Amino acid sequence: MSKKQKKFVRESYVTMTELVLPNDTNTLNNLMGGRLMHWMDIVSAIAAQKHSNRIVVTASVDNVSFGKPIQLGNVVTLKAKVTRAFNSSMEVHIQVEAEDIPSGKKFASNSAFFTFVAVDQSGRPIDIPEAIPETDEERDLYDGALRRRQLRLVLAGRMDPDEAVELKSIFNLNKE
Amino acid sequence: MSKKQKKFVRESYVTMTELVLPNDTNTLNNLMGGRLMHWMDIVSAIAAQKHSNRIVVTASVDNVSFGKPIQLGNVVTLKAKVTRAFNSSMEVHIQVEAEDIPSGKKFASNSAFFTFVAVDQSGRPIDIPEAIPETDEERDLYDGALRRRQLRLVLAGRMDPDEAVELKSIFNLNKE
Amino acid sequence: MSKKQKKFVRESYVTMTELVLPNDTNTLNNLMGGRLMHWMDIVSAIAAQKHSNRIVVTASVDNVSFGKPIQLGNVVTLKAKVTRAFNSSMEVHIQVEAEDIPSGKKFASNSAFFTFVAVDQSGRPIDIPEAIPETDEERDLYDGALRRRQLRLVLAGRMDPDEAVELKSIFNLNKE
Amino acid sequence: MSKKQKKFVRESYVTMTELVLPNDTNTLNNLMGGRLMHWMDIVSAIAAQKHSNRIVVTASVDNVSFGKPIQLGNVVTLKAKVTRAFNSSMEVHIQVEAEDIPSGKKFASNSAFFTFVAVDQSGRPIDIPEAIPETDEERDLYDGALRRRQLRLVLAGRMDPDEAVELKSIFNLNKE
Amino acid sequence: MSKKQKKFVRESYVTMTELVLPNDTNTLNNLMGGRLMHWMDIVSAIAAQKHSNRIVVTASVDNVSFGKPIQLGNVVTLKAKVTRAFNSSMEVHIQVEAEDIPSGKKFASNSAFFTFVAVDQSGRPIDIPEAIPETDEERDLYDGALRRRQLRLVLAGRMDPDEAVELKSIFNLNKE
Amino acid sequence: MSKKQKKFVRESYVTMTELVLPNDTNTLNNLMGGRLMHWMDIVSAIAAQKHSNRIVVTASVDNVSFGKPIQLGNVVTLKAKVTRAFNSSMEVHIQVEAEDIPSGKKFASNSAFFTFVAVDQSGRPIDIPEAIPETDEERDLYDGALRRRQLRLVLAGRMDPDEAVELKSIFNLNKE
Repeated sequence: MSKKQKKFVRESYVTMTELVLPNDTNTLNNLMGGRLMHWMDIVSAIAAQKHSNRIVVTASVDNVSFGKPIQLGNVVTLKAKVTRAFNSSMEVHIQVEAEDIPSGKKFASNSAFFTFVAVDQSGRPIDIPEAIPETDEERDLYDGALRRRQLRLVLAGRMDPDEAVELKSIFNLNKE
Repeated sequence: MSKKQKKFVRESYVTMTELVLPNDTNTLNNLMGGRLMHWMDIVSAIAAQKHSNRIVVTASVDNVSFGKPIQLGNVVTLKAKVTRAFNSSMEVHIQVEAEDIPSGKKFASNSAFFTFVAVDQSGRPIDIPEAIPETDEERDLYDGALRRRQLRLVLAGRMDPDEAVELKSIFNLNKE
Repeated sequence: MSKKQKKFVRESYVTMTELVLPNDTNTLNNLMGGRLMHWMDIVSAIAAQKHSNRIVVTASVDNVSFGKPIQLGNVVTLKAKVTRAFNSSMEVHIQVEAEDIPSGKKFASNSAFFTFVAVDQSGRPIDIPEAIPETDEERDLYDGALRRRQLRLVLAGRMDPDEAVELKSIFNLNKE
Repeated sequence: MSKKQKKFVRESYVTMTELVLPNDTNTLNNLMGGRLMHWMDIVSAIAAQKHSNRIVVTASVDNVSFGKPIQLGNVVTLKAKVTRAFNSSMEVHIQVEAEDIPSGKKFASNSAFFTFVAVDQSGRPIDIPEAIPETDEERDLYDGALRRRQLRLVLAGRMDPDEAVELKSIFNLNKE
Repeated sequence: MSKKQKKFVRESYVTMTELVLPNDTNTLNNLMGGRLMHWMDIVSAIAAQKHSNRIVVTASVDNVSFGKPIQLGNVVTLKAKVTRAFNSSMEVHIQVEAEDIPSGKKFASNSAFFTFVAVDQSGRPIDIPEAIPETDEERDLYDGALRRRQLRLVLAGRMDPDEAVELKSIFNLNKE
Repeated sequence: MSKKQKKFVRESYVTMTELVLPNDTNTLNNLMGGRLMHWMDIVSAIAAQKHSNRIVVTASVDNVSFGKPIQLGNVVTLKAKVTRAFNSSMEVHIQVEAEDIPSGKKFASNSAFFTFVAVDQSGRPIDIPEAIPETDEERDLYDGALRRRQLRLVLAGRMDPDEAVELKSIFNLNKE
């Protein structure tokens, strides 16, 4: 590809809505974390597919934390978008919101970053378009993507912590 | 609790075996990452239950990376154990192995750390026993748990990076 | 309720995204109609819940027709909104779109009208707010709702066809 | 096919029995309408397969209304039969009955008409046998099939209401 | 109960029809035995419920053998009926038939005997009506029930083989 | 195969852990027997695959009895191992244990024998290695396998009871 193709971040936007059913819950009638991650994986895979127009496979999931419990009968809304594309991989941001509609309670549950690799029919990585941010939020996510990528590489033992220049900034250590 | 109760790490060991069925796979016939995380959540919740003898809820999932694809018909073995207990939370380590039995191929797929909080019937956090490591592997996991906990707190914006003494060691920055 | 509460149609908007998995398909690898109706029921029930802030039960489904087959691996997007509210019942319009993302093909699959009744905790019908349309499309759907309701009542044997004034208009018979 | 093959309606009879499980129910512990339609689609597809000895795809669903709620633990019996065959499509009638066995309560839940098209391995419509009614009920359903077909075509915008001669009879308008 | 209630065997008849979907099959695209036993358990539990008008729990399953493979897309018909009732337990006979409808192939797959205990709301065994056979087949099954019950008790170590008078007859040993 | 290959029984050991979810239970909130048999079939099929390194199909299930009810939220542990191999078939023993972890209650639920046939890609039976027992328990299971096999053949009408020498021993009749 002599000149890299470009797509806007907004072209990858996906909204998924799920109703919490009995089999999704634990004995406290709360949504199990694993079930939520399953949904996060599907919605973010669709965002990655929309950006790349390719089959995609999950490469990694960043640290996810779970807050307030989501209950049986709640409606869960998951919004995903690509934040930044690298050669054949792309990072996707997912925001999860839960709502107890009869009582009118709605709250941000959590958010996460999943990384996907675009592959061809034989499963080999393949080049994807650049992701162009347009809004302030999209630009912030785009800028942070490099730092999060270094953290992933360091944690996977595939980058020397000394070289993780962007990452060090979260420890305010670059100035030292 | 005047004196904290103790349990050995090995008392929390759990092995789960799953067969990859069609609905677990993507269009390349490979296991979807979200489905694997769903299984990881269940096996690690059981390990956390065994350690605490309590209902447990998923608090967070550390960075997970996915390697070689796991295929339709493969057998997936997940092994979980508690690595270290804090007040009401505990970290669980999960190792995933996949096997294509007819061809005799077996490979380590990936590993992850999930954190659970033990709760009472009304969902309030409750104290749990200490986890006592016995083998070298258990001690290594026990020792690293503090560093991983600091990373979780820093990433969740609940700890000042400057105070994450243990964590800094991965960047060899303590000496500075 | 001395004075009827009002809500805008747009407050009931819901978008649901589903990935067609193996168990959703027939032996031609196409999405089964019954599975699609199951999804339509969930997305429209959520729209009805959002409008009424009540538990809702499906009262009826209008004639649905299925067009071009949706295939394994396709992404299905369902958009639902309340069109008009009556005493305790409301009509919901659902539009279904399917997309084969790798090939970039996207097409309108079909649309339908589901009717829900809002109920209290003991399952008794309860009054709901009026639905106020704002756009041209919302107003068209609002206007047609009366005619569709008469057709439902006539088909259920609960209205004499002679009284179905609005309905007759589709046969251009009112002038006669 | 120089001479059209014939089969009796009774050769297509199918009975399906389902037990209402937790995941089939809403927060009132009642069977969700979408789940019931999923079952209706399967039982009627089997009836259509039995008549045509072909793979069949759902073409349309006529107006369905839902009556008395069906509860968790109830046994649902669905009976389907082909009512009439056209060139490559056939109409199927489904009757649904629910039973709370321990309390001995049994009631007719609802009924519906689904239409299927018989297709060959590449998904192209293919001719099917005529359906010969034998009992009074079968003949009534056979006779009404034409009128319901016109309603489907008018509602789908594929027939001019003026030409729907059979359909008009329900409005007692033919005499005019 | 001074005088035992009676019900005809035919009052317990149940027919269940299932379509073999991808997740029900192994890598040869054949129905897995465990899935079939799951269906057998549901259909026979419904027959036992119909006879006893009680909640029932599976007490035992007799030797089941699986013959010709049932394939993806096949229609499986399960027919169950109570053969004989004891105090609070009853034996149910299930016959399984599979059909590849497009090819017109239909074959008896297998048959089995399941035993259920009727229980009250606290799970305690409770008396049930006698089962009265009417046809020759029903009488044969009724007569054999005693012998099969002895085999169950001997295999469970709850009856001394010497006392299993009926059972010995299958080894032609009573004459000795 | 001039000389038969051998494998140790322990090479086939499999442990599966399942959490009882709402859809696995009846209206008393107890695990349904059919669901447990489904799990037993999967765990024993994996043991048979590990022994034979082949695709396997369920050939038969011996008499299974169900004891104390297993409840919603319980953890079920299934352990399977091949007991003895014949030409292309092998018997697998499964032990099921249930645990209510918060209350610390753990109990042996039941055990069963499943028989599998190893097949090639076209579904034809194929020779498998011998299974070599090493412990006392493995040897007892190995020794009893012949007797259980005769019972299966007699019950399936494929062996004359008079020839079932091993089987008769359970009735202490050989001496007569």
